[in-house]
Amino acid sequence: MGKKIGSTAFFDSVFVKSSGAVGGKKEGEGPLGYCFDKIFCDEYLGTKNFEQAESALQSNAINYALKKGNLTAVDIDCIFAGDLLSQCTASSVCAKAFKVPFFGVYGACSTAVLAVGGGAVSIEGGFSKHALAVTSSHFCASERQFRYPLEYGNQRTPTAQWTVTGAGATVLTDTKTDVKISAFTVGKICDLNVTDPNNMGAAMAPAAYDTIKTYLADSGTEIFDYDCIFTGDLGAVGSELLYELFDLDGINLRPYHRDCGKMIFSRQRQDVHAGGSGCGCVGSVLCGYIYPSLKSGRLKRVLVCATGALLSPVTALRSDPIPAIAHLIELQHYPAAQ
Amino acid sequence: MGKKIGSTAFFDSVFVKSSGAVGGKKEGEGPLGYCFDKIFCDEYLGTKNFEQAESALQSNAINYALKKGNLTAVDIDCIFAGDLLSQCTASSVCAKAFKVPFFGVYGACSTAVLAVGGGAVSIEGGFSKHALAVTSSHFCASERQFRYPLEYGNQRTPTAQWTVTGAGATVLTDTKTDVKISAFTVGKICDLNVTDPNNMGAAMAPAAYDTIKTYLADSGTEIFDYDCIFTGDLGAVGSELLYELFDLDGINLRPYHRDCGKMIFSRQRQDVHAGGSGCGCVGSVLCGYIYPSLKSGRLKRVLVCATGALLSPVTALRSDPIPAIAHLIELQHYPAAQ
Repeated sequence: MGKKIGSTAFFDSVFVKSSGAVGGKKEGEGPLGYCFDKIFCDEYLGTKNFEQAESALQSNAINYALKKGNLTAVDIDCIFAGDLLSQCTASSVCAKAFKVPFFGVYGACSTAVLAVGGGAVSIEGGFSKHALAVTSSHFCASERQFRYPLEYGNQRTPTAQWTVTGAGATVLTDTKTDVKISAFTVGKICDLNVTDPNNMGAAMAPAAYDTIKTYLADSGTEIFDYDCIFTGDLGAVGSELLYELFDLDGINLRPYHRDCGKMIFSRQRQDVHAGGSGCGCVGSVLCGYIYPSLKSGRLKRVLVCATGALLSPVTALRSDPIPAIAHLIELQHYPAAQ
Repeated sequence: MGKKIGSTAFFDSVFVKSSGAVGGKKEGEGPLGYCFDKIFCDEYLGTKNFEQAESALQSNAINYALKKGNLTAVDIDCIFAGDLLSQCTASSVCAKAFKVPFFGVYGACSTAVLAVGGGAVSIEGGFSKHALAVTSSHFCASERQFRYPLEYGNQRTPTAQWTVTGAGATVLTDTKTDVKISAFTVGKICDLNVTDPNNMGAAMAPAAYDTIKTYLADSGTEIFDYDCIFTGDLGAVGSELLYELFDLDGINLRPYHRDCGKMIFSRQRQDVHAGGSGCGCVGSVLCGYIYPSLKSGRLKRVLVCATGALLSPVTALRSDPIPAIAHLIELQHYPAAQ
């Protein structure tokens, strides 16, 4: 039975059975290119438009995760999914092929961890034996929706991030594996009145700070208890702001921190400005890099704090303040002997 | 500890502590006008735009629910919320004032039941003592987003539904009250290739049929075991299609069925064509009419099956097929003696 302290749910029996990660051409050319199960060089993935292509990314990630877990869709009790497209259509269009109960979640780029956390709660509560968490983003679909049609060839500001074309799928199980999900913190909305949709790192950094601090308090741990604290997609700008916030507490986060948005692309080589972003950023890094590193024992104990900027095309055009949120999971290497 | 059979989670200890329902002028003039805690005749609710007005609807519903439960926001472990606006901004903008862990969910008009179900799972699993589920819709914000600006004065087809301006908030608790939530079925995506966003009843009826049939099978019950089976917002067209689907099984659903989309407006008086729709439709009817009827014992045992049409402005413009989903909860009158 689960336990709750503060904002955090602690789990005894939630494990990662398998995962799948797919990406686009640019992601394949990045430093983590070797981590993907498949790289798609055609941005349409053989479909008619970018939105359908994003659904295809999800389907592929799910199929890799199921295959590696020796499962089929009928073994899955519930899919927890969401994405950046308005009304989360990439997820619902993808899910219709699997005919599995579908629990839609939304937290912008934090959706990857929200979906895993939702699945974990359903497993620990005894409502699922196998739950699947999946999320995605697609550069071309996001640009069209949130910014400008690609054909305009508009310039990007230095603080802007590059939406990852990719998807990550996690199969969660109640049966022991090498990777344990030991806790899940649901974040609170933070809004410090950042209004620039080309500087989402600044909007999201306070949310990451709040959620990480909340988790450390709830768990009674310190940052040096972890091999690494991953954030979702703060990018270069947001990461610096996160360090400044921890500096005010006298904590030097730098040696313990890595940001998926900085890891997935080479900012020197790939012209992505402040780094990667999108649900598919933390989603594919989690599924393609973090889980495998925990499985092998290269990482023993980590936090993954995924951040989301909760803007919409309407609120962005109106320059409304951008509410942000960050959700967090703790992951542990859990050798079979335990 | 919860129990799962098929697609359904069964609960021992999830109860409704209190609820709040607010609506707009048209909703106040409808047959259920007396059920709302407050009716707002100004469609802006004193804000600058319709999207902020929708957030204000949610805030008001939450405040009524908290007040009636003798609670404040600090007593709430987690808010489960979502809405029809792209990227669920009505919910995130509303939630920032409450500073409570925020779990974003999305299921179009089925969101009301999805949020309650998510909260119920968190309570039964031991992760929340009090969870709050809230959702909303706003006619003017939805028209602008999904159809045409109001200023165009466009004509509506006979199958079209009228998005409800309203919100409903539920406080769930692990402590016995008169209203028990005994089960939650997560629906599957159904897509029978309906492409007309002005006929969402037709898109959603197969999803309602699938989820109700699934629940009856999982629970081993029949339709005559219930005082009423409520659907979310199938409207007049979708309700008839649902009857036809049950007729094929030799089941006459008509005497047991009521649709929130047909209940909330008078189709004779109010020019709403096929009836009401939107997250705020089932949300406000659930919180303003169904819970109170169960509390008083006028209803003893009901199903609430909320349906959602998972289209987006982009997929609607492209006339893509509309995936649909329906989530279901069972509610029981639970007198103090038990």
